[in-house]
Amino acid sequence: VTEPLVWLNGSLADAAHAHVAVNDRGFTLADGVFETVRASARQPLWLADHLARLRDGAALLGIPVPFDDAAIEAGLRALLAATGFTDAALRVTLTRGEAAQRGLWPPGEPVRPTLLAIVAALPPAHPVRAIVAASTCRNERSPLAGIKSLNVGDHILARREAHARGADEAILLNTAGRTACASVANVFANIDGAWCTPPVSDGALPGIARLRLLRRARIDERSISAAELRRAVAIVTTNSLRCASVVALDGVPLADLASELGVEALYE
Amino acid sequence: VTEPLVWLNGSLADAAHAHVAVNDRGFTLADGVFETVRASARQPLWLADHLARLRDGAALLGIPVPFDDAAIEAGLRALLAATGFTDAALRVTLTRGEAAQRGLWPPGEPVRPTLLAIVAALPPAHPVRAIVAASTCRNERSPLAGIKSLNVGDHILARREAHARGADEAILLNTAGRTACASVANVFANIDGAWCTPPVSDGALPGIARLRLLRRARIDERSISAAELRRAVAIVTTNSLRCASVVALDGVPLADLASELGVEALYE
Repeated sequence: VTEPLVWLNGSLADAAHAHVAVNDRGFTLADGVFETVRASARQPLWLADHLARLRDGAALLGIPVPFDDAAIEAGLRALLAATGFTDAALRVTLTRGEAAQRGLWPPGEPVRPTLLAIVAALPPAHPVRAIVAASTCRNERSPLAGIKSLNVGDHILARREAHARGADEAILLNTAGRTACASVANVFANIDGAWCTPPVSDGALPGIARLRLLRRARIDERSISAAELRRAVAIVTTNSLRCASVVALDGVPLADLASELGVEALYE
Repeated sequence: VTEPLVWLNGSLADAAHAHVAVNDRGFTLADGVFETVRASARQPLWLADHLARLRDGAALLGIPVPFDDAAIEAGLRALLAATGFTDAALRVTLTRGEAAQRGLWPPGEPVRPTLLAIVAALPPAHPVRAIVAASTCRNERSPLAGIKSLNVGDHILARREAHARGADEAILLNTAGRTACASVANVFANIDGAWCTPPVSDGALPGIARLRLLRRARIDERSISAAELRRAVAIVTTNSLRCASVVALDGVPLADLASELGVEALYE
């Protein structure tokens, strides 16, 4: 790794001197979307899927994406090359950008989106101790649950609760008390001898690893009540960076059956 | 008005050169709270209430407020004096600040909060045409509904829907289909001859103007179903900047009964 750089609005920039405006609507109103992309051996993984999801989210919010996929890919590759990361976590953030006027939705506002990519080392794998979050829930009734919105406040609350309770990760229920997803991952549970995962309509993040795993392994996509989740003998989480076995849920030990799912091979 | 300035982390700064870091958790994760404060004749209105609410929200999120109330008030007054605004909308934003590491909740992360105040002219009063938002709902089950969180994505979706349908404002229902609040205001409805407003437990923003009005006028604080809301003969919205009469809901004209509530006098 040579020096901290970011890719901001189409150019590589020194991270220490790259900023966003104080009236960027990403900062003031969480008005944007993001993607977290794994890079292995300097190759962004599943990038077409990530950019398609970014565009879906941007379309829902009415934010134009200011670069085509090839330009974004070139930017991410330039960022990886210039920083020297090989196995990395890229984060792409798109916001509605700098506001000309105050307010939630000023009339006639021109849109000047902000597109930022940052990079960091791929976080190490570690065993995950999870809780079922009691402090908050995921609103599966909001269209924001179907995109990677910047509005992750409930996930932060859930994760704070997990750490306060001596755990690493929180599984959020939805407003109906059904399993939705973990704070930064999708959830696969082995219940009554079968693997299952919540549908997006229950508030599951539309995860890219999730969808790829659903296509490869025998997994029922179905609603999972909180009571069923607590009956699981094994739980695996996936996101675009890696998979993990949950070693305990609310302090109750779980089995490591991740190899049954073949989930490690997903990232190869 | 002389020149665009902001108050950032304790100092007045030229707006054109004031920035936030690209890894500020307000920008990347909506990890913060805000207040919108009216200033009349250069005096911030209800400032003690606003700062108390800011501290409540910061406490829920575990973000230290880096200045005491007197220092924040002095900063806001300096901002008003230096910019020359007399009747203004101040916006105070507090975030968990610049992250040292990537991720939703990195372990052992030091907190260096960002506190920003910006100022703009008080927006003019205008008649409000409202819709009942069909595109999304407010999650009254989240603790975020009880604070002024940066996670206002659902309100942006609702407001976009309002403008697409030829209106100015959206009233959000909660996950149970009951009235919560408007996108930037609380809602008071005259139904069956009596004024009522939804409780905070139904997802009403804990509005400062709302609370002050509840103490002055005969208003029932009670759940309001969507069907009841559509039966209202008059609807008034309040926020910390001003009150407004809703002239039509979903295109159906309403009466202007704001004077019954004495709501204008609130801001004097």
